[in-house]
Amino acid sequence: MRKISVIGIGAGDPDQLTVQAVEALRRVDVFFLLDKGTEKADLAEARHALLRRHLGDGRSGGGRPYRLVTLDDPERDRAADGAGYPGTVTDWRARRADRIERAFLDELGEDATGAFLVWGDPSLYDSTLAVLDEVLERGAVRFDHEVIPGISSVSALAARHRTGLNRVGAPVQITTGRRLADEGWPEGVDDLVVMLDAHQSFLRHTADDPLIFWGAYVGTTDEILVSGRLSEVAGRIVELRAEARARKGWIMDTYLLRREP
Amino acid sequence: MRKISVIGIGAGDPDQLTVQAVEALRRVDVFFLLDKGTEKADLAEARHALLRRHLGDGRSGGGRPYRLVTLDDPERDRAADGAGYPGTVTDWRARRADRIERAFLDELGEDATGAFLVWGDPSLYDSTLAVLDEVLERGAVRFDHEVIPGISSVSALAARHRTGLNRVGAPVQITTGRRLADEGWPEGVDDLVVMLDAHQSFLRHTADDPLIFWGAYVGTTDEILVSGRLSEVAGRIVELRAEARARKGWIMDTYLLRREP
Repeated sequence: MRKISVIGIGAGDPDQLTVQAVEALRRVDVFFLLDKGTEKADLAEARHALLRRHLGDGRSGGGRPYRLVTLDDPERDRAADGAGYPGTVTDWRARRADRIERAFLDELGEDATGAFLVWGDPSLYDSTLAVLDEVLERGAVRFDHEVIPGISSVSALAARHRTGLNRVGAPVQITTGRRLADEGWPEGVDDLVVMLDAHQSFLRHTADDPLIFWGAYVGTTDEILVSGRLSEVAGRIVELRAEARARKGWIMDTYLLRREP
Repeated sequence: MRKISVIGIGAGDPDQLTVQAVEALRRVDVFFLLDKGTEKADLAEARHALLRRHLGDGRSGGGRPYRLVTLDDPERDRAADGAGYPGTVTDWRARRADRIERAFLDELGEDATGAFLVWGDPSLYDSTLAVLDEVLERGAVRFDHEVIPGISSVSALAARHRTGLNRVGAPVQITTGRRLADEGWPEGVDDLVVMLDAHQSFLRHTADDPLIFWGAYVGTTDEILVSGRLSEVAGRIVELRAEARARKGWIMDTYLLRREP
């Protein structure tokens, strides 16, 4: 039976892989890399660097050379985002499942081990597991899969700011920038982690004046961290984001907002 | 200046330490271990085993032998839990800060590195960082500290169940059993991770009949996993919890509840 490892590789620092993840890398025959276009070419390069670092001689643990198979990631119709967002994602996921199913049949021997490398932790805002479930449901290719947890960008952010995510006995919610923009600050929670925020939704909350713990490219040499009262630091974050996007062509940032109960 | 590392050591699997955490262990002169009494003696033993595994010869990276300093954890007045819970914790934290301050002055040379080993990730339902902030504020002992993120029990649970924590574009909330019991299912969120649930608060939600992904001692040889419709598996989870508590004297479990939006 084919085996698939979904391996969390941490938020950017190549030393934030677990020992378990390094061992999993060494069992892999074929790495399937989803190519999201040139925009994030340096993320792809970082993944290659990580493989070179941990599989230095170009071979897996059994002494076999490993192979990289790059899959074109289907375009997502971002114009249809908004109310139709989950529908768009469902369609995009189905097309992704097509390509992965095809790749397993064409590129992965029946006793071989394939892997997906997932930035952060595979359980948080990543579609790999859902796409694999869809491939399994179709039934055209059988495989057994395992998930290796990784350090999420949320844990990495909190560590760099040396803060907890929750306060004593209180909850923390992890949400998206879109959600914060559309629905406002959620009820019943005062600690809020925001991911995937392309539109700086925190700017709508300067009046509440929570604390913000913000970070971009956390754990990499490009890391930028800012924390403080949102009213005081929001402008600086906007500037830093714009500069970083202009310099690198993309940005990956996360933040924690903390307001008084 | 004294250095303190707060090191996330993962949820139980000794291979779920990051490479960064292993390197941090090797720089440590003194490990401060909070002894929470006999109840969790095997957690203390697991921590010792982890040090033996990664620092096999009983020495830190500089070739110096490392030392273990065990601090009695102050008793928490659990009878006062309930409405007074945060106040009780504040008082308990202050007493913990007393002991840590004393230990830094007595046991850690001015250029030495101390460490705390935190199960899971230091950012989630752990008081070490807040206590260190309190020690710093008092000003009697100065130190620089860093945080090494770890695999949280939440990530470990999701990985073992091979599921994501959130659905497409939707939030996930992490809360406590107490909170779920006192305030019910929170508004605006359909994916809910519950930690520190001594009272099986999930039993109040069998009517909604969400899916549950439950795990105890995740990543260890005692691991138990159950998933399914809550109405169908709640009874089995109650039985397994009772058996495991009777056998081991303590239980550490976490679960994800997922209801239809």
